[in-house]
Amino acid sequence: MPVNLPFPQATQLRPVPGVQLGTTAAGIHKSGRNDVLVMTFDQGSHVAGVFTQNRFCAAPVTVCRAHLASDQPIRALVVNTGNANAGTGATGLTHAQQTCEALGHLLNVPAHNILPFSTGVILEPLPVTRLIDALPQALANRAHDHWLPAAQAIMTTDTQPKAASRTIHIDGQPITLTGICKGAGMIRPNMATMLGFIATDAPIAQALLQELVKQVADQSFNCISIDGDTSTNDAFVLIATGVASISEITTATGEAYICFYNALVSLAQELAQMIVRDGEGATKFIRILVEAGKDISECRQVAYTIAHSPLVKTAFFASDPNLGRILAAIGYAGIHDLAIDQVNLWLDDVWVAQQGGRHPHYQESDGQRVMQQSEITVRVSLGRGTASASVWTCDFSHDYVSINASYRS
Amino acid sequence: MPVNLPFPQATQLRPVPGVQLGTTAAGIHKSGRNDVLVMTFDQGSHVAGVFTQNRFCAAPVTVCRAHLASDQPIRALVVNTGNANAGTGATGLTHAQQTCEALGHLLNVPAHNILPFSTGVILEPLPVTRLIDALPQALANRAHDHWLPAAQAIMTTDTQPKAASRTIHIDGQPITLTGICKGAGMIRPNMATMLGFIATDAPIAQALLQELVKQVADQSFNCISIDGDTSTNDAFVLIATGVASISEITTATGEAYICFYNALVSLAQELAQMIVRDGEGATKFIRILVEAGKDISECRQVAYTIAHSPLVKTAFFASDPNLGRILAAIGYAGIHDLAIDQVNLWLDDVWVAQQGGRHPHYQESDGQRVMQQSEITVRVSLGRGTASASVWTCDFSHDYVSINASYRS
Repeated sequence: MPVNLPFPQATQLRPVPGVQLGTTAAGIHKSGRNDVLVMTFDQGSHVAGVFTQNRFCAAPVTVCRAHLASDQPIRALVVNTGNANAGTGATGLTHAQQTCEALGHLLNVPAHNILPFSTGVILEPLPVTRLIDALPQALANRAHDHWLPAAQAIMTTDTQPKAASRTIHIDGQPITLTGICKGAGMIRPNMATMLGFIATDAPIAQALLQELVKQVADQSFNCISIDGDTSTNDAFVLIATGVASISEITTATGEAYICFYNALVSLAQELAQMIVRDGEGATKFIRILVEAGKDISECRQVAYTIAHSPLVKTAFFASDPNLGRILAAIGYAGIHDLAIDQVNLWLDDVWVAQQGGRHPHYQESDGQRVMQQSEITVRVSLGRGTASASVWTCDFSHDYVSINASYRS
Repeated sequence: MPVNLPFPQATQLRPVPGVQLGTTAAGIHKSGRNDVLVMTFDQGSHVAGVFTQNRFCAAPVTVCRAHLASDQPIRALVVNTGNANAGTGATGLTHAQQTCEALGHLLNVPAHNILPFSTGVILEPLPVTRLIDALPQALANRAHDHWLPAAQAIMTTDTQPKAASRTIHIDGQPITLTGICKGAGMIRPNMATMLGFIATDAPIAQALLQELVKQVADQSFNCISIDGDTSTNDAFVLIATGVASISEITTATGEAYICFYNALVSLAQELAQMIVRDGEGATKFIRILVEAGKDISECRQVAYTIAHSPLVKTAFFASDPNLGRILAAIGYAGIHDLAIDQVNLWLDDVWVAQQGGRHPHYQESDGQRVMQQSEITVRVSLGRGTASASVWTCDFSHDYVSINASYRS
């Protein structure tokens, strides 16, 4: 049961002029459901992406990087679920390239105008023939308003599709941003996420788009963790079709940029939080805010250490205010000169630890009250600077074990 | 159910001349069972210890460090379970000091000749009066052959006491080494372990004993992880009473040293592995061997990343050869220049991945056969050097969640 994650309504997902989406079933996902998505972009679209830092990155990630680096226009992307095409060596690379060639052929564009994505089981050969055979069907299914079926076709252990939209106005013109993402396990993005795609009809210069994708990932998908496992296939891609009739945004300044940037960050954060809300076995959504650190890096380090502690996560699952476990995690987060008598801890509005020890007015019943909520904020003050960072995570339940003990069976 | 961990027989635990052990119930542990251990050492004993690197180290750890640094003889130690006296600020320090003063008074030695230890719940005040009131009873209970009740009195979520002995001969004289330890959760020792105590009647010079305790911890308690959570209270202490009539061992050379060192490492490894075998909810004992690395540090880093991955651990629980999860963990272990086409992976005798991809002869049924065993070796070759490192860990089961979701209730 996802945590406060309403099922997206198709009518709330606004088509992005310049983008079409088609889905089909290629028989790669064991369930027989739709498992292939093709997105095509009008000529003139700009595309930028960030990808996993996992050294065992999947073959399609390697191909995406090469195609984006070629400075050629990107005209389509293809995603399959059910198989990650990772840990597949040279054969895997060939399969990813063959997929691009096949789709390029059907669209009458070169193979390096295509970005391939895969998600699913690692270390098993991609059934590339089935994928290629399904491409004509996916193309035939294309429409501007297929964002919801697109979100459904890329799911793995997700219990719900994840999609959202924003509409803003720039120079009196409506601008749309719509995005989808997937992921529920093996989630600890490192400079990227599982799969996230956001498209807009705003015209954004290619160089600026490339800056934006990194900046936005750092404020959204790079702030989440479910189990601390960085995937082999993480990717976050921004598509700007430029179909809207406003002047191209070329620099990170000015009213139009700020308006667009705020909408983009807000959408990316909503999508990233959807992944946590649908975290494998999650029963609670937890915000971890670490403040008064020397720099953002140490704040993130402490926040992630708390977010990854199995003891902290099981205490949240049990609604047990066993909050010493949070102090222990702060203590082993690797800040060697941390003065613990400067550390304060709050659970929502409850002051739990003051100057490194139990707050004199802290009552177990107050901790208990907050722990029973479905959404909880852990706030840590390190008392050594002015930097801060947030991480969003979930608890660790019996269902997490069940889901991951039976993922392939 | 611990993994291949026989209940220790009292008759197999050999008394160490110069060491006496007494236990009692102080009413600190909620069960009402024995929860206090006092060990006393004959005059002339040498004692050395290593402690947690957690910045939120417990009050007794701070006191132990100060007392060991004072270069005064250590004549006794006192351990309570049921309360960690961690996250307790200045009051916690006072409580630990009061405990030493009370025991010192009873033994007619200064307070800084005593080492205090606590284990249990963090962030709750130590019931120091109950502890002090129980000390005379614990002293009265002392005997040379109370190693088994001592191991039982320091248990927290352990399902079994952990204790073992070695006898060696040096210069024709029998030398005994006996040790106990505890710990089943919050286990990822960093330069130390939960609580481990090994005593010997061999005469070992103080300076050498201090070197030995670090060296042996690195080869035993520092090679284990259950959940990746470094405790606030880890401590590993070596006691050498010097009662045996052989010449004092003063340097890390010579036949007597080598004989003693081998027995000590073997005993410490057995005790450390007992902690993993009794890991919270463990159903499998897993050795992770990472070899052909550039240095030991990167081998340990990769081994711990595999050992801490919830996805790898749940796959072991399910006996599911979802071995791509191991490759993913290797890939995000933080070796930024790792060439994945040099990486090989074996599960016991089964060659799973060759040069970064699935081995052409790897059969799922072979992986399945090994995964069903209760003891499994994961061997990774990084193909970039000659260093290697081992880590011992366990799987991640429903029971881990149950135990930690109800630890305090």
